[in-house]
Order: sequence, then C-alpha cells, then structure tokens
Amino acid sequence: MDPDQLAKAFVEHYYSTFDANRAGLVSLYQDESMLTFEGQKTQGSQNIVAKLTSLPFQQCQHGITTVDCQPSGPAGGMLVFVSGNLQLAGEQHALKFSQGLVALLGESRALFSSSFK
Amino acid sequence: MDPDQLAKAFVEHYYSTFDANRAGLVSLYQDESMLTFEGQKTQGSQNIVAKLTSLPFQQCQHGITTVDCQPSGPAGGMLVFVSGNLQLAGEQHALKFSQGLVALLGESRALFSSSFK
Repeated sequence: MDPDQLAKAFVEHYYSTFDANRAGLVSLYQDESMLTFEGQKTQGSQNIVAKLTSLPFQQCQHGITTVDCQPSGPAGGMLVFVSGNLQLAGEQHALKFSQGLVALLGESRALFSSSFK
Repeated sequence: MDPDQLAKAFVEHYYSTFDANRAGLVSLYQDESMLTFEGQKTQGSQNIVAKLTSLPFQQCQHGITTVDCQPSGPAGGMLVFVSGNLQLAGEQHALKFSQGLVALLGESRALFSSSFK
C-alpha cells in the first residue's frame, strides 16, 4: 500500500471510529501521544480519549474533503493534513474542520485545530 | 524560549517572508524538505520556492489566527498547525487557509493544504 493510500485509510478509520464509538479511539493513541484541541494540549491515550468524549457534542458525522500526506522526517512517520466538514446532530449547517497529525509506526501524535464558521 | 513561542516566531517569520519576499523562503527549506500544496507534492528548497513564486497571485498578506505546536515524535522536531486569512491584492474578501508543518532543527518540512471559501 502506498503512503497516500495508507494515510487515507488511517484517516477514514480514525473518523469513522470518532463518529461511531469515540471511546474506541484509545487504541490509536499511545502514552506518548499528544492532542492539541483549540489550543489546549492533552497527553496520553486515556487523557486524550477523556477529552474527546467530553466535547459538548455527542452525535456527529465527519465528512473528509482532502487528505494530504508526506514523510515527516528522517526518523520515519507521516505528516498528514486533513480538511473536511463536521455535521453535528440537530444543527442545520456543517462546520469546517482541519487537522494536522504525525503518525508514527504503532504510534500517533495528533494535533487538532478547528476553524469553525 | 519555550516551544510555543519558538513556533509562533517561526510562523511569523515564515509568513512575513512569504508576503514581502517570497523567494527568500529558500533559506527555510532544505533539499529533503517537501511541500504539498493542494495535493501536489514538491521536494527540495529550489523546487519549493519555484512552486511558491509561480502561484497565480503576487501581492498577498497573511493574517495568522492560531498557531498550535507540540512535539512531533521521539526524534525531535515540532508539529505546528496554523490557521488564518489570506488577503490577495485587489480581492474584497480574504480567503481562509490552514497549514500543518513539521519543523526539525535546521530543517523544515512543510505541508500545505488550503481550504478556500
């Protein structure tokens, strides 16, 4: 599988898990992983999932628009950049989101930032 | 200087150079650096700057809204996520942009993706 296909498969798996079973994201993070969500940093898989499951929306549906990937550095891993729409239950209009993440072999470190309109 | 301040200073330097002297960005990339711009990959400092200087707009002004950063992995380096507005000369409305990049010591690998509205 080429790196672009691998990145796309990873992103699809990540967001389908996010939408269907957010607590299941725990297996995609390690103790060294870090999440930055709207400027707030959270480290470790348990803490990250606690943060994600405590967001003020429960039902949501991510729609992926673009997935770009490239090598993240000489140590291996991929830099992945995602953009798309986030539809919240009961809301008429979808929000825009984008995410940059570095995925290492057996480890992901995700950095979130959202730009809502 | 703490990592967040370093990331912010790097981003401000990057975009002020982009706006004032785009060709000057060559010093911020290395031969191993890669740029992904709207799905198209470009490798190497000279090729990246050739790509950036050939974009269909010459005069522009980036306004930074958010800069998030976190360690990118055990090999060092930072994952930085930027969002903001891009004002093109002669256009009434600013475009939204966002960028994920990994900056290593003495080396940057930038991944661009733009979401225009």
